[in-house]
Amino acid sequence: MAEKKKIGILGASGYTGAELVRLLLRHPRVEIVLLTADRRAGHKLGDVFPQFAPCDLPQLVSIESVDWAAAKLDLVFCALPHATTQKVLKDLLAKAPETKVVDLSADFRLGDPAVYAKWYGHEHHALELQKEAVYGLTEIYRRDVKRARLVANPGCYTTCAQLPLIPLLKAKAIESDEIVIDAKSGTTGAGRSAKEDTLFSEVSEGFHAYGVGHHRHMSELDQEFSKAAGKDVVATFTPHLTPMNRGIYPTIYVRGRRGKTAHELHDILSKQYEKDPFVYVLPFGKTPDSRHVRGSNMTFIGVAEDRIPGRAIIVSTLDNLTKGASGQAVQNMNVMLGFAETLGIDQPALSS
Amino acid sequence: MAEKKKIGILGASGYTGAELVRLLLRHPRVEIVLLTADRRAGHKLGDVFPQFAPCDLPQLVSIESVDWAAAKLDLVFCALPHATTQKVLKDLLAKAPETKVVDLSADFRLGDPAVYAKWYGHEHHALELQKEAVYGLTEIYRRDVKRARLVANPGCYTTCAQLPLIPLLKAKAIESDEIVIDAKSGTTGAGRSAKEDTLFSEVSEGFHAYGVGHHRHMSELDQEFSKAAGKDVVATFTPHLTPMNRGIYPTIYVRGRRGKTAHELHDILSKQYEKDPFVYVLPFGKTPDSRHVRGSNMTFIGVAEDRIPGRAIIVSTLDNLTKGASGQAVQNMNVMLGFAETLGIDQPALSS
Amino acid sequence: MAEKKKIGILGASGYTGAELVRLLLRHPRVEIVLLTADRRAGHKLGDVFPQFAPCDLPQLVSIESVDWAAAKLDLVFCALPHATTQKVLKDLLAKAPETKVVDLSADFRLGDPAVYAKWYGHEHHALELQKEAVYGLTEIYRRDVKRARLVANPGCYTTCAQLPLIPLLKAKAIESDEIVIDAKSGTTGAGRSAKEDTLFSEVSEGFHAYGVGHHRHMSELDQEFSKAAGKDVVATFTPHLTPMNRGIYPTIYVRGRRGKTAHELHDILSKQYEKDPFVYVLPFGKTPDSRHVRGSNMTFIGVAEDRIPGRAIIVSTLDNLTKGASGQAVQNMNVMLGFAETLGIDQPALSS
Amino acid sequence: MAEKKKIGILGASGYTGAELVRLLLRHPRVEIVLLTADRRAGHKLGDVFPQFAPCDLPQLVSIESVDWAAAKLDLVFCALPHATTQKVLKDLLAKAPETKVVDLSADFRLGDPAVYAKWYGHEHHALELQKEAVYGLTEIYRRDVKRARLVANPGCYTTCAQLPLIPLLKAKAIESDEIVIDAKSGTTGAGRSAKEDTLFSEVSEGFHAYGVGHHRHMSELDQEFSKAAGKDVVATFTPHLTPMNRGIYPTIYVRGRRGKTAHELHDILSKQYEKDPFVYVLPFGKTPDSRHVRGSNMTFIGVAEDRIPGRAIIVSTLDNLTKGASGQAVQNMNVMLGFAETLGIDQPALSS
Repeated sequence: MAEKKKIGILGASGYTGAELVRLLLRHPRVEIVLLTADRRAGHKLGDVFPQFAPCDLPQLVSIESVDWAAAKLDLVFCALPHATTQKVLKDLLAKAPETKVVDLSADFRLGDPAVYAKWYGHEHHALELQKEAVYGLTEIYRRDVKRARLVANPGCYTTCAQLPLIPLLKAKAIESDEIVIDAKSGTTGAGRSAKEDTLFSEVSEGFHAYGVGHHRHMSELDQEFSKAAGKDVVATFTPHLTPMNRGIYPTIYVRGRRGKTAHELHDILSKQYEKDPFVYVLPFGKTPDSRHVRGSNMTFIGVAEDRIPGRAIIVSTLDNLTKGASGQAVQNMNVMLGFAETLGIDQPALSS
Repeated sequence: MAEKKKIGILGASGYTGAELVRLLLRHPRVEIVLLTADRRAGHKLGDVFPQFAPCDLPQLVSIESVDWAAAKLDLVFCALPHATTQKVLKDLLAKAPETKVVDLSADFRLGDPAVYAKWYGHEHHALELQKEAVYGLTEIYRRDVKRARLVANPGCYTTCAQLPLIPLLKAKAIESDEIVIDAKSGTTGAGRSAKEDTLFSEVSEGFHAYGVGHHRHMSELDQEFSKAAGKDVVATFTPHLTPMNRGIYPTIYVRGRRGKTAHELHDILSKQYEKDPFVYVLPFGKTPDSRHVRGSNMTFIGVAEDRIPGRAIIVSTLDNLTKGASGQAVQNMNVMLGFAETLGIDQPALSS
Repeated sequence: MAEKKKIGILGASGYTGAELVRLLLRHPRVEIVLLTADRRAGHKLGDVFPQFAPCDLPQLVSIESVDWAAAKLDLVFCALPHATTQKVLKDLLAKAPETKVVDLSADFRLGDPAVYAKWYGHEHHALELQKEAVYGLTEIYRRDVKRARLVANPGCYTTCAQLPLIPLLKAKAIESDEIVIDAKSGTTGAGRSAKEDTLFSEVSEGFHAYGVGHHRHMSELDQEFSKAAGKDVVATFTPHLTPMNRGIYPTIYVRGRRGKTAHELHDILSKQYEKDPFVYVLPFGKTPDSRHVRGSNMTFIGVAEDRIPGRAIIVSTLDNLTKGASGQAVQNMNVMLGFAETLGIDQPALSS
Repeated sequence: MAEKKKIGILGASGYTGAELVRLLLRHPRVEIVLLTADRRAGHKLGDVFPQFAPCDLPQLVSIESVDWAAAKLDLVFCALPHATTQKVLKDLLAKAPETKVVDLSADFRLGDPAVYAKWYGHEHHALELQKEAVYGLTEIYRRDVKRARLVANPGCYTTCAQLPLIPLLKAKAIESDEIVIDAKSGTTGAGRSAKEDTLFSEVSEGFHAYGVGHHRHMSELDQEFSKAAGKDVVATFTPHLTPMNRGIYPTIYVRGRRGKTAHELHDILSKQYEKDPFVYVLPFGKTPDSRHVRGSNMTFIGVAEDRIPGRAIIVSTLDNLTKGASGQAVQNMNVMLGFAETLGIDQPALSS
């Protein structure tokens, strides 16, 4: 059997960290040799996530205590908060330039330093790396990911909206100035830090929009949609919080360009993803449920006709912790390390 | 103390029936004297809804067994299924022409027999009553409701979308051919009959669209939007099921007409509902949570600016069992019987 | 119409505070004239709980800023955290000795200073008031409550377990050393402060015990059970967290004493609560659902036979925010101020 | 690579069927070659459970249409309803006597025909098979399972209560006549057939006991507890429904025998399961959350001291669809077919 690659996870005490562990524990070609969690250094991961108590895993350490050069990691998943990420990865890649990185934060997703500064309110702290980073929407940038040292793993909302829209924009099949994305998210997307807003008593039995008109994820959509369309695209995007743990569910309203029908849009997407293991386009007119992808790395896409002639309704869904974060990160790792793309992430959904 | 009015509830074993009982039990001017539930005739309502076991209520009877003339009911709430309703009310009003009726079904909401036949696939069985019926969106048709004998209580989705959109269409403040309504509903909207689709194990931890492109509620929206705009209006409308019991939450995308800004749309709605006890327009830019109206008869409306110039995002929310059904039915009863409009339905929401 | 009594709520920004407001807004004999919330002083309650935004309520102020003598409050509900309570009420009653108080904290529930010191790890800071305070389990101590100036409102778990067990212990109908109380709670019982443990993402789709063997509520049970039995009683009590907002649900395992059957236990409880408006004993063998009391001030009690001869299973349920806290507090207020006991708290449950 | 074993699943359209498919799709040594679902014959499994739409699986067929001899199945999982099971398996094993069977129904769990007849109200229809069947609680009966042709897979409640209690009863470490099992279940345990009781609108935000005093699972507990103790044991057992999809959570109250302490009970269980891959005993005093095992085949067991001397509280939890049904069925298959016991069922839990 081939030697196992040595993997580190930075920021293992959050939900995306736990999801990486869940997936990698069953991955036949890798071994988790480093887990960091600054506030929980010295503890076991099983103290933070009891589901891992029976598993054989390295103890949690602080990032400061790691000697990157000595660690000789093949690949690092970085699940650290915004801004911290830039500093840590700059240091890491200076000391261990051969280590590959999949970063799950938003820090390296925007290619243009000016756009970054505008949305985040400060200069980027690792401009060279920002230039180097490859945007890791695997289905679209597979070739670039293959050669990359640093992959910026896309966000959950953005992955889910881009997979159906990018092929349609590239094909100039839809009007690029009439896109409305009404997106819904489960609560794990809001992270694990204690906030009144995400208490069970505040979230269950309710539904609400947030960040209306000014959500940061929009910058990522603008960048990729514009690249696909070959011109500036600004879509309407509204995120909502739904009382469920996992799942992203954008309902997308588009108008076909030059008479393109909903059927034709469906055809474009069906062809585009015919051979992609992690994107499934439903039969025309059918729409998915977020449960159908929960815990899996799948994206399910449905296309239906609106009753207004010329308009179509596209629904896309994925699990924000798998295809929307850690699953796609492992998918990118598989591509970067030359493994089969589905290795370790082929589990079907846990519908109920 | 004034004599109490005699009230009947037809179809008391469904969720809207139970909600009527909940509200009317505390209403100081009425008395429930008749409860029908064909399959549960002979039982107590407390056998069907144990929360009412300690309450003093009439036994459930079958509709057939009721002598309408002898019953001398002041007002009847009809919460029967589609189609049955037409037959029952035709008979009731023939035998007891002085009884007033608030009907919670969709049977009398469409004024045009041809439109009815198109959406429901058969001729209306009570054409005279269809002509007589008044559409009971109280805030808009209060004067007609006051004089009505038969009120067609609006649907939950439609009430929630009409309250913000009708004033804007009347004021010609928005483009009438670019309205997108992305609506979410709690599960009680699907009723209490046993269906695999609405099992807890199928609904919890998931989110999904349904009836994409062809939901029956659209006919009601078309009728009222067109009336308000003074021309044919067809809006895009997509309903979704959310894992919560109560709540309707449409996110509405509109474009201001002739340069109307989101602020101006907000002003129109604020003025329109200034004195209405059951509609609250939030400060500009704020959007509500469905929890903030749960169990109450309130509708909360928020208006925010989209980042695309000229476009606005409007969010509206109500509880589908109160303002979306039984609460508005009681509100209509109050208007029809000359009571204060808020009597018995002024309870604040049960947020958690 | 009689003049309205002037009411203050200390600690209005927590769940029990919000529930007091919800109930008192519809109470015909009182007026809320003071709302405190130290961290939110200067704001409106509608900023903290948007469901109250449309309501006419006093602005939030800090406790320090209140002049108790000048305020001339008829009654104060105190919903402050443990320990703070003692200091605030000592000061308040010194300056405004005619104001009555219903305290919702645990600070005045234990009558014995030594027991208090043992469970809470420090001396009580208001020993005189501790002596004066009346334990406010209304159904059991109604006469004392009527004369009281300071009522210690019981906890939610303890109210729910005491209502069925106290009459049985008083009647010496059950073995007092074999009581097992397996209790389940909704999440609002854990309060509104931000904690990782009570995030939606940590609570939904899960169930767990906590505080096994050493929960503080046990001291309150010990005191009241021992008083009822006339000898020391120590019951086994395990609390659990259930993924729902509201509801307490103890399943209680007892053995009949001297051949007392489950039927006889049921008879004792039925007779005891025959005329009590807020306790409903189900027909023998039937057990309730926590939904049947949600949002109401009711306690539903069921008694069934175990298959082991001589043993019975008793199930009791109430809403932790109403009968388990704010509803019982208003019930006590009604008794203290000479109103009808059910005034303002007679709303039926919101089952769905 | 070794040839894959040919597997059939009878009753693939229920939750346990779907869970078998989920697990077996990733099992490296087996291939699903037959899926039956009488009412859905002719459809794809993806029509019933859309999460499997992208998977390559045999079409659904009716049981009648199967030629058991020709099918040459190595092993069949039978997830059919009670009673049907007996008839189908009798026929199957007559025609294909070399096929092995893991039956997930209750039909073959009771070894004594008289006990079966008492609880189920009729004679067993396959008495010979009832005699032959091995009770498949893998950790306890591993050796018998290895040699078995027909394994009766235990129920979810009973697996969860037996794993902690059987070793304690065998060791005579607890009083066998004072066992109280207060058990809670998620909703998938109630199956997928449409019933009013298990609608989302009836289950969410509520908690209730059911079958108090007379649940059928008790017969299975009686049989196994009595066998372990070497004398008749009748435990108190109360099941409850919790608003979550998956999870069984019994809280068990016991008294140590002859001075045995909670610590000693913990030691017995720790030693018993030291090497068992699917049972994890937590450190003394800690108790698990049902989320920690969700989607995995693990059972987590916690032991804590009660404050009443001599009494202990034991908490055990598993996922009713995996270790409580399909996961244990695959575990039994692994043992019966000579695979590693953990093959295909070693995925960690999906905590959130």
